[in-house]
Amino acid sequence: MAPIRKLKVGCAGLGRMGQRHANNFLNKTPRAELVAAFSPDSREIAWAKDNLEPYGVTLYMDYDEMLNHEGLEAVVLATVTAVHAEQAIKAIASDKHVLSDKPLSTSDEISQQVVDAATKKTHLKVMCGFSRRFDASYGDVKSKITAGVIGKPIVFHGQTGDKRDPSGFFVQYAKFSGGIFVDCTIHDIDLALWFFGEDNVVKSIYATGVTAIEPDLRQYNDCDNAVGIVEFYSGQIAYFYVSRMMAAGQEDQTFIAGTDGKLTVNQDPAINLVQIHDNSGIRRQVPQNYFERFSEAFTYEANQFTAAVLDDLPTPLNPQGAVHAVKIARALQESMNTGHKIMYDEYEQRIN
Amino acid sequence: MAPIRKLKVGCAGLGRMGQRHANNFLNKTPRAELVAAFSPDSREIAWAKDNLEPYGVTLYMDYDEMLNHEGLEAVVLATVTAVHAEQAIKAIASDKHVLSDKPLSTSDEISQQVVDAATKKTHLKVMCGFSRRFDASYGDVKSKITAGVIGKPIVFHGQTGDKRDPSGFFVQYAKFSGGIFVDCTIHDIDLALWFFGEDNVVKSIYATGVTAIEPDLRQYNDCDNAVGIVEFYSGQIAYFYVSRMMAAGQEDQTFIAGTDGKLTVNQDPAINLVQIHDNSGIRRQVPQNYFERFSEAFTYEANQFTAAVLDDLPTPLNPQGAVHAVKIARALQESMNTGHKIMYDEYEQRIN
Amino acid sequence: MAPIRKLKVGCAGLGRMGQRHANNFLNKTPRAELVAAFSPDSREIAWAKDNLEPYGVTLYMDYDEMLNHEGLEAVVLATVTAVHAEQAIKAIASDKHVLSDKPLSTSDEISQQVVDAATKKTHLKVMCGFSRRFDASYGDVKSKITAGVIGKPIVFHGQTGDKRDPSGFFVQYAKFSGGIFVDCTIHDIDLALWFFGEDNVVKSIYATGVTAIEPDLRQYNDCDNAVGIVEFYSGQIAYFYVSRMMAAGQEDQTFIAGTDGKLTVNQDPAINLVQIHDNSGIRRQVPQNYFERFSEAFTYEANQFTAAVLDDLPTPLNPQGAVHAVKIARALQESMNTGHKIMYDEYEQRIN
Amino acid sequence: MAPIRKLKVGCAGLGRMGQRHANNFLNKTPRAELVAAFSPDSREIAWAKDNLEPYGVTLYMDYDEMLNHEGLEAVVLATVTAVHAEQAIKAIASDKHVLSDKPLSTSDEISQQVVDAATKKTHLKVMCGFSRRFDASYGDVKSKITAGVIGKPIVFHGQTGDKRDPSGFFVQYAKFSGGIFVDCTIHDIDLALWFFGEDNVVKSIYATGVTAIEPDLRQYNDCDNAVGIVEFYSGQIAYFYVSRMMAAGQEDQTFIAGTDGKLTVNQDPAINLVQIHDNSGIRRQVPQNYFERFSEAFTYEANQFTAAVLDDLPTPLNPQGAVHAVKIARALQESMNTGHKIMYDEYEQRIN
Repeated sequence: MAPIRKLKVGCAGLGRMGQRHANNFLNKTPRAELVAAFSPDSREIAWAKDNLEPYGVTLYMDYDEMLNHEGLEAVVLATVTAVHAEQAIKAIASDKHVLSDKPLSTSDEISQQVVDAATKKTHLKVMCGFSRRFDASYGDVKSKITAGVIGKPIVFHGQTGDKRDPSGFFVQYAKFSGGIFVDCTIHDIDLALWFFGEDNVVKSIYATGVTAIEPDLRQYNDCDNAVGIVEFYSGQIAYFYVSRMMAAGQEDQTFIAGTDGKLTVNQDPAINLVQIHDNSGIRRQVPQNYFERFSEAFTYEANQFTAAVLDDLPTPLNPQGAVHAVKIARALQESMNTGHKIMYDEYEQRIN
Repeated sequence: MAPIRKLKVGCAGLGRMGQRHANNFLNKTPRAELVAAFSPDSREIAWAKDNLEPYGVTLYMDYDEMLNHEGLEAVVLATVTAVHAEQAIKAIASDKHVLSDKPLSTSDEISQQVVDAATKKTHLKVMCGFSRRFDASYGDVKSKITAGVIGKPIVFHGQTGDKRDPSGFFVQYAKFSGGIFVDCTIHDIDLALWFFGEDNVVKSIYATGVTAIEPDLRQYNDCDNAVGIVEFYSGQIAYFYVSRMMAAGQEDQTFIAGTDGKLTVNQDPAINLVQIHDNSGIRRQVPQNYFERFSEAFTYEANQFTAAVLDDLPTPLNPQGAVHAVKIARALQESMNTGHKIMYDEYEQRIN
Repeated sequence: MAPIRKLKVGCAGLGRMGQRHANNFLNKTPRAELVAAFSPDSREIAWAKDNLEPYGVTLYMDYDEMLNHEGLEAVVLATVTAVHAEQAIKAIASDKHVLSDKPLSTSDEISQQVVDAATKKTHLKVMCGFSRRFDASYGDVKSKITAGVIGKPIVFHGQTGDKRDPSGFFVQYAKFSGGIFVDCTIHDIDLALWFFGEDNVVKSIYATGVTAIEPDLRQYNDCDNAVGIVEFYSGQIAYFYVSRMMAAGQEDQTFIAGTDGKLTVNQDPAINLVQIHDNSGIRRQVPQNYFERFSEAFTYEANQFTAAVLDDLPTPLNPQGAVHAVKIARALQESMNTGHKIMYDEYEQRIN
Repeated sequence: MAPIRKLKVGCAGLGRMGQRHANNFLNKTPRAELVAAFSPDSREIAWAKDNLEPYGVTLYMDYDEMLNHEGLEAVVLATVTAVHAEQAIKAIASDKHVLSDKPLSTSDEISQQVVDAATKKTHLKVMCGFSRRFDASYGDVKSKITAGVIGKPIVFHGQTGDKRDPSGFFVQYAKFSGGIFVDCTIHDIDLALWFFGEDNVVKSIYATGVTAIEPDLRQYNDCDNAVGIVEFYSGQIAYFYVSRMMAAGQEDQTFIAGTDGKLTVNQDPAINLVQIHDNSGIRRQVPQNYFERFSEAFTYEANQFTAAVLDDLPTPLNPQGAVHAVKIARALQESMNTGHKIMYDEYEQRIN
């Protein structure tokens, strides 16, 4: 038989997330081959010399040069959010498939530019990586909803809870993150759209927040705890809690209530199947960060993206959906900061 | 020693809740004695002839007559909400202690009249029965918050989920109930005030709702699923989900997140300690209604009210707090119906 | 209507368990009346002067005198195990119904004498109180088994786990308790017989044990952790773990596996519905002793015993079954001490 | 840098387990390379032509030929148990590292021959794959025990519960499996030895079993439900439940109780983090077979074996321990069939 064809992938960005993507494409995506990696940061390149180069990965400190790597077919973007859109558009221009970390941009207008570029090259797969879509439990929920297990889904609640980090990291991060709804709740928004139907039209958005542990967040128009409500013209409601204040660890919990039943995900967070009985009671330990909770989802994402390219399948996520999620997240963030309810007409044009 | 003194109690209303209260004071409140019962309904009186009279309880079909029962010291009001306030005021006027089912009224102005009447008779105990205050788990949460287990409480989430009732009962009930926030969420509001501090001042209120299963609710300005957010000047947020659509049973779940930890109540609803392993998986059965979930709380409430009277202790609930809860519930209901955010000044006077 | 008839009950023994029984019959058993109480211990009598006499209970320091109390109809025996049998036989002789704490005796021969006495007075209700039979969850399991939910029950596992008590109490207690299988596992044996069918014939018994925390138990032929297996001629197996070493609290867990399903009780012990999220993880607290776990079962037992007498119903437990449970428990204890498997013929006569 | 060195592995046996091992070494073990595969079965070879050959794997229908594959360094044995030992010995003779599926043999004498062969070639890594050792939860338990979290471990309980298979498969399988203790409980025995200390000396063994659903198992001296107890000279006890009768799925549950605490694994089996609320209650779905529960453990095992070879580390499992586990499993099986307790002296020589 013919030898197997492997997708040639380049990884842009080799920070915390980039290293994970590089590792996934190098070691855990049988149908892909990591052939190139880019970082503008010499410390990241040093890491790559030890960890990628010995496996045959060519390293670049210039993104455009990497795009010219012989035979490169696809790029995964794990750079800082601010350059995602530009890099994605360049990659599309040079005929590469793109898997970008979320969000495409903290601006929905800029995100739209990526989608517009992609739309012109229908032979390319362009995907914005909402990792939860690749989590086995959320996938099971989607299947069950599609199978009618809960009737029509009506109310979605998503909580993203980061472990409290007393180092002040979240304050620094707020300068660039677009704010807590754009950084965190965007995952829950994406899930809500996935479960409700991606063509749902938003009717109104409202949010409120506080700074309970990091008052300095206010200088960046951000909060450490916030709740928001999105109302759809379809008669469905998604509401959200987002927090940087969890004591036990990463607590990302979801429920979706339908006319005939309800599904929950991660009602009882746990790092593994162990329970500890001691004189404080019976306890489970909890994942300490997003990656501990979702590490397998990132691996599955790499494999699904690869399959979409090699087998010319639709990407599991529609990039227009990613723009929609950013738009909703930004409106939640705005409402939190202004205190105003934001309203939309039936074409989802703002009317206030 | 002197024989024990027992509080002489009369029960007004002998419907579903009244029978439970009568039974609690008759059989499960050692320091009280049920001496009288009232109902204007001949079927309820027929029930009482079989179930109360043989135990020495005198029956009345006129409320004022019952108030004149020789030696009567206290009344429990389990009549329809519409007459709670009038009956409470009459009882206070005739120098009886009062335990009223919630709410005192679906109007906060009328509720306030009861409180004003009670304020003039400081020797009387007047209490509006928010049953969850007497639930062991919520009591434990209150103790833990007071002990500082979670630091400062910041975000409260309360879900009251009634089992879906396809009979149309909830539509009929909506005529009188004051609406889903006044009928159900009022419990969650009361808990939020209890955990946050009862002198908290509301800054804003917003809600939205849908009729997913009972469109006829709209004619009574009600919904079958709704979410709402209450923002306090203290930098705390309470948000709520209320539903008549639960498939499994009564699902009343609560969490409260603080700066140093989080407490949950009833994260995994269950009717008892049994799990069933069969080819559908592993499952727990769930209480089918509010009373199955909280029956012990009602018993404990009867005992605590009795002790407050006999030992001249403060009542566990301040009736002014009950008025506050009604006011918030009504504002949520209004916001759900108008779509407007309601705002308050620092004295909790409405400013829009 | 005729005034309600209440069963006149006397309580023998006013130690920890006796106080609970007295309180149950005084305050939580509507159809019974506690009219008398006996203790040979002056401190217990002092307690009763404060807590029972004011409610009209006559106190006795002589058991026989209490039996002569005017109108006394039934006695509850909460004295030390060593006198249960004698006191039960005396009560039967003077025509009183009897509710005895388990076991009737640590000897099955002496237990049998009580049953023989009872058999001659068929108008009396004589019941040995295995509290778990009155627990709602175990009752639910029994109903489900009867309804065929798990097909034919095949394997029963019962764990009784007492919280570790570093005071040395368990060593002192071992002098009188009959040993860990007779003191604790007897509950699990009773459940196994209940679920399997009380006429089941034992084929073999084997046990082994260790003293991990209390080596002094060996001087009383006891252990602090032990496991045992009972094989029945019916093709069913009950096996047990019993421990005085639980760190978190009382951990009494049960499962029963049948041909078509499995039921568990108390798989996840918890004192209430609260979960605590802190930097150690997510935990539940656990009942600290047997009574915290089963307090409602004792109340229900008092009510069921009363109903059996007043309505002339069969007692929920057959006293012959209690003798059987003692016999099995003693054989487990013997096997643990000798290391020998004990075998029985098809009439459950020992054959080694 | 020098290109990375990958371990060249051959896979013997391409049935259900062999395909999994082949896939793990092909796709999920970055430091290994699957270069060869062997099966005597033409259907398995047909599968390999489609699934392995295109990736550069050379196929063999003769085991000895595969051993001569150019550059082959290690073999994984996923053939039928009956040939494990012979194939392992041949591989050792030709200087290959060996990862064998458990058990080495259903005979402890034959298992010992493998160990003896390995002992003579200390440069080779020879490992018997007890998959649970590579499960994250069991690994966590081991770490916690080593860290003293539960004090001295005293009592181990292991349950291996296979989903009921009405096809009669288990009867056919019993001809070769060595019996339910050798086939299933061997995993629990291995865990008990791991947690208690692998040099523990067995004092006695006792077991009993029934055929509740598959009476034909008796012709192969097997049962479908069995319990057994292993007593150690160290004052520790391991006891086991093994069943082919689970209705919900694979239910492998473990606890280990120590002097200061208790650890459980998989107390609440679940296929993922989803809970389903419907009118039957709230339920989790359960893995349907051993591989669904432990699939990640097999992947981790492949990676750990590879690292042991490449980095010359001790293998995570000592092959002598595997022989010990087989010996205990066989004695449990014997005791179940004879009804006799088996006893050992302090050198673990049988004394009856």
